[in-house]
Amino acid sequence: MNSTDIILKMVFDRWNASLKAWDKLLNELTDEQLQKEVAPGKNRGVYLLGHMIAVHDDMLVLLDMGERLYPDWHQTFIDSPDKSVAVIPSVQELRDSWRNQCEVIKQRLENLSPGDWFDRHTAISAEDFVKEPHRNKLNIIVTRTTHLNYHTGQLILLK
Amino acid sequence: MNSTDIILKMVFDRWNASLKAWDKLLNELTDEQLQKEVAPGKNRGVYLLGHMIAVHDDMLVLLDMGERLYPDWHQTFIDSPDKSVAVIPSVQELRDSWRNQCEVIKQRLENLSPGDWFDRHTAISAEDFVKEPHRNKLNIIVTRTTHLNYHTGQLILLK
Repeated sequence: MNSTDIILKMVFDRWNASLKAWDKLLNELTDEQLQKEVAPGKNRGVYLLGHMIAVHDDMLVLLDMGERLYPDWHQTFIDSPDKSVAVIPSVQELRDSWRNQCEVIKQRLENLSPGDWFDRHTAISAEDFVKEPHRNKLNIIVTRTTHLNYHTGQLILLK
Repeated sequence: MNSTDIILKMVFDRWNASLKAWDKLLNELTDEQLQKEVAPGKNRGVYLLGHMIAVHDDMLVLLDMGERLYPDWHQTFIDSPDKSVAVIPSVQELRDSWRNQCEVIKQRLENLSPGDWFDRHTAISAEDFVKEPHRNKLNIIVTRTTHLNYHTGQLILLK
């Protein structure tokens, strides 16, 4: 194993373990629990689930892997705070969409070769990338892994 | 920049940004706020702060950078759940210790050269490391970064 292979394993082990922890938690929580706020006056579980789908949908674009699967949810779960949008998708629809999205992302990630991960993501220009080569596709996985953990720490409070 | 330099920058950017976010939050929260539970019946802010110091203290040992600075706190903030130990350090003592520990860890990290990060950490044998080269020192930073984000997502609920 060379150092690139090692680092890719480290990053994807963390990403996959974080997804697994979120999934486990999601399966343990009932729809009723997900309707509750993680703490008084804070986001509901259902909002965090929608938020996670919307953020991971953006990854498809950033990684140049196609269009968003649920483009309308960016507005609902990123641009708008919880409880400000009158009608949001049901917990069941969000659970199904999450599962579907995980499968799609997993398949598309597998199509990338090790070298592709050090190419630029779509939110940085070729010109800037010369000066900032760390703003690559792999960094999208690194930053979304910490994002996922941040909200897992909140979702677990519903247990 | 070669790919090792790029990956080190990515990992340490994430680690440092996560520490900065935690620090900012800690400075915004009063001692009274830190005495509260992040959600009803869950850990108090003060416990999370002690827990973070205890976990980062273990990093010193895992990274072979010396002894723990606050060895007794492993028992108080990792082995014991919140509210099970009669007397814990004051918020002020924890704040001071956190600041001190961050400075110590920062200095010791700077003493490592890029290649050192791909050496094994102290919790894996030389024999196992041959088969699992991803269990290196850098992976300690990667996993503690997600740990820090997990609890930052909780601590922010006190705002």
